[in-house]
Amino acid sequence: MRTLGEIAETVGVPLRGGDVATPVTGVATLQSAKPGQISFLINPRYRQYLSNTQASAVILSQRDADSCCVPMLVTDNPHVVYAHVAALFAPAPPTTRGIHPTACVSPTAQIADATWIGPHSVVEAGAVLEEGVIVGPHCVVGEFAVLGSNTRLVASVTVCHGVRLGQRVLVHPGAVIGSDGFGLANDHGQWVKIPQLGGVQVGDDVEIGANTTVDRGTLEDTIIEQGVKLDNQIQIAHNVRIGAHSALAGCVGIAGSARIGRHCVLGGGVGVAGHLDIADHVQITGMSLVTDSLTEAGVYSSSLPVQPHRRWNKISARLRQLDGLARRLFALENKCFSDDPTKRR
Amino acid sequence: MRTLGEIAETVGVPLRGGDVATPVTGVATLQSAKPGQISFLINPRYRQYLSNTQASAVILSQRDADSCCVPMLVTDNPHVVYAHVAALFAPAPPTTRGIHPTACVSPTAQIADATWIGPHSVVEAGAVLEEGVIVGPHCVVGEFAVLGSNTRLVASVTVCHGVRLGQRVLVHPGAVIGSDGFGLANDHGQWVKIPQLGGVQVGDDVEIGANTTVDRGTLEDTIIEQGVKLDNQIQIAHNVRIGAHSALAGCVGIAGSARIGRHCVLGGGVGVAGHLDIADHVQITGMSLVTDSLTEAGVYSSSLPVQPHRRWNKISARLRQLDGLARRLFALENKCFSDDPTKRR
Amino acid sequence: MRTLGEIAETVGVPLRGGDVATPVTGVATLQSAKPGQISFLINPRYRQYLSNTQASAVILSQRDADSCCVPMLVTDNPHVVYAHVAALFAPAPPTTRGIHPTACVSPTAQIADATWIGPHSVVEAGAVLEEGVIVGPHCVVGEFAVLGSNTRLVASVTVCHGVRLGQRVLVHPGAVIGSDGFGLANDHGQWVKIPQLGGVQVGDDVEIGANTTVDRGTLEDTIIEQGVKLDNQIQIAHNVRIGAHSALAGCVGIAGSARIGRHCVLGGGVGVAGHLDIADHVQITGMSLVTDSLTEAGVYSSSLPVQPHRRWNKISARLRQLDGLARRLFALENKCFSDDPTKRR
Repeated sequence: MRTLGEIAETVGVPLRGGDVATPVTGVATLQSAKPGQISFLINPRYRQYLSNTQASAVILSQRDADSCCVPMLVTDNPHVVYAHVAALFAPAPPTTRGIHPTACVSPTAQIADATWIGPHSVVEAGAVLEEGVIVGPHCVVGEFAVLGSNTRLVASVTVCHGVRLGQRVLVHPGAVIGSDGFGLANDHGQWVKIPQLGGVQVGDDVEIGANTTVDRGTLEDTIIEQGVKLDNQIQIAHNVRIGAHSALAGCVGIAGSARIGRHCVLGGGVGVAGHLDIADHVQITGMSLVTDSLTEAGVYSSSLPVQPHRRWNKISARLRQLDGLARRLFALENKCFSDDPTKRR
Repeated sequence: MRTLGEIAETVGVPLRGGDVATPVTGVATLQSAKPGQISFLINPRYRQYLSNTQASAVILSQRDADSCCVPMLVTDNPHVVYAHVAALFAPAPPTTRGIHPTACVSPTAQIADATWIGPHSVVEAGAVLEEGVIVGPHCVVGEFAVLGSNTRLVASVTVCHGVRLGQRVLVHPGAVIGSDGFGLANDHGQWVKIPQLGGVQVGDDVEIGANTTVDRGTLEDTIIEQGVKLDNQIQIAHNVRIGAHSALAGCVGIAGSARIGRHCVLGGGVGVAGHLDIADHVQITGMSLVTDSLTEAGVYSSSLPVQPHRRWNKISARLRQLDGLARRLFALENKCFSDDPTKRR
Repeated sequence: MRTLGEIAETVGVPLRGGDVATPVTGVATLQSAKPGQISFLINPRYRQYLSNTQASAVILSQRDADSCCVPMLVTDNPHVVYAHVAALFAPAPPTTRGIHPTACVSPTAQIADATWIGPHSVVEAGAVLEEGVIVGPHCVVGEFAVLGSNTRLVASVTVCHGVRLGQRVLVHPGAVIGSDGFGLANDHGQWVKIPQLGGVQVGDDVEIGANTTVDRGTLEDTIIEQGVKLDNQIQIAHNVRIGAHSALAGCVGIAGSARIGRHCVLGGGVGVAGHLDIADHVQITGMSLVTDSLTEAGVYSSSLPVQPHRRWNKISARLRQLDGLARRLFALENKCFSDDPTKRR
């Protein structure tokens, strides 16, 4: 049991109003919070629920403080403060240490203290698990792979040979790191496999989502820099580099040798072609396609939102005529502006 | 061995023509059916094969009955009747019951009668498997997860802690249910993880495809209502709700907190942005993007079909000029209709 | 340790310049190669690094030979020759043979000589593993599945019942072959499952990427012909046929009963609708959508590259007006060309 006062102290935000001794049992939304729960106001669309919340305290920013009738944690960044408060109530990772009797661990693997290798997991020859590593059930850690300290494979994760994960890396179920890149040479119509001899380097504090795949490099390594966050169902091809602190939403695909800058944000389903560079601080909206390097920070898009199908069909048909329409427009201009030579094209 | 008469009786459709004692060994397409097999006519493009089929009977609708020279099962919905007939010839699910000796089952898990836990599967503490549950090989059932009666995890499925599946849920290999949602707060350029404290509720008779991922909610649950059908490679983000009896084709991605109505159909590769509502009975055609709520039933699209590359490049280039082209058109109108003020814009 | 002379002889390309006895330890890019390594020049953008390379030899084509100051392997197809040279330095597949003590192998499975079944893998009743098959850790080989000689499941692969893989098939982690197709009939708003009674046939020398899914057919088989290469995160629906020697990049989705020709190349994220035919030698650029049959070889596209977001928003808004703009253009033409009846539309 924690109290409001303890929580405020832990996250370093003064409690405004309320009794520091109020017991707190968890976090909840403004609408559903009961007494004993802490809530938060981040997205303005939920401001309407502030006045009636039963929460014992609300994390919010100064601009919303006047509308709040319950105790508050007022901060410049309620999202981050909420994250820290919620972490106090998150289920702890497994605390068991050791090797489950059904796990297969090579005698040449180096297993540090305070690690856990779960049921049916396989750790191959020469692999290194640093202190505090947690390998959940049904994982495979390939030969000479390295898992940095406090890294966690949640369950059913495959880390292929020689892959290096940093510290505090969190990998969700079904992810595959270090599978072969898609390297092919065409010999008179038949494909010859290019051996994929590089590895994968994953920096500290990276999170990799469920069923996401990261291919090993062809010769040099695929690199995911520190603090990168990858959502589910993402495909990272060989020799890609993702700059530090970038976040990629679900279903993104990055083709081979593309380089994504630092602090980039890619929306869901974005595609990035191979062999190009994206600058730092670039944002791409969902389902857009990047086919050329982007040298300047900013927001980029190429996706089209839905229309009623019949209307869209007309638009799509006109789009196929667009070059012809443009030429007809130019012809008209030539005719109509023929008396005005400055307007001719 | 079944007979035509038995089958007609089982599916509740009278046999028109033919001998009820005719033995039936299986189902096949009109083109490939041999005597002893039942066929069907659903898609009009296969009508051409009706006259020459060797099938012992054909399931079809009244409008095709006159063109059919073999025994018939005439029905308003040949697709559904075919489904029921084919089910008579489908391989039965595993009938073995018990716990495979290589499975790891927590002593605190509650395992009902008539269940099967396959080789190398892991059932963690407090998990509940109701009567008739089948857990295939290589599955993980996390702590306090609940599998409703007659639910089946085919193989290599990961069900994370606390996830609740209803009755008769069918989950295909590689699916992950209950992985962490992609919740991040940005603290001066670095991402702080938002703990994902909610769960996942999956209703009765839901089917979840191979390598599909369903994230747990941030605070409240992600919800897949009864009768929903999810194809392969789908991503369902945290706090999404999919209404009952909706069907999502492969590679769909639904962003966080989106609400899809009941009886919706989403084509392959569709993307749905977060925090929006889609009404009941909405259909979205393949590879379209939904960025705003859709409040009315109907068919919606935003995808563009391929053109020869050179032609497409011209269209794409003109599209980038489209705003300028429109302005030029308006200027022309102003000039040409200057004698007619009602036409000016 | 190999020598330049041995390597040249092995790949059948004469060494131009240099000492045949030069020891070679591996392959590397032009920029990073050290003495003792062989490099290559395939992509013209790396030509700038040729003059300063420290490689002991470079694989290149005749047109680049004059600019090269180190020993050379000159060939019409440096990509293919590089592939063969690199293969000499690729890590050998596992050489252990037998059945790992933790594997579960049905007594009715037929296991040929010189095979390996890795830790925690499951081989079900009636499955056939031909000579030289390697099943890595955590794989499932379903009932009566057949793995042709020298086929390799790298790790965590699920091959469902009755699936037939040819010879030298290579399947990467997380792939699922033979999951149920997405077959549904609608009975007054509720979905009835169509049993998926067909199988999957995979030809010789096929490669299947990480977390890729290939569904079994409804009645007849889904077919991946010989030499096809599938990248990661691909979805192949039921009854699809992929023609020999086609290559599909990551995240492609092919809907049911589509037929892709031979020697096709589909870029990343391409979608192909169901029940259509694509001719041989068709190329589709990334993130395009095919909704109709393509009867002629060639390159096809429908994707749009990103623009700065504000500019794209204007374009997107104009696009929604496109039909109206076109009509306004026609009206203008009617007015302006009214004196010239041949120009009227």
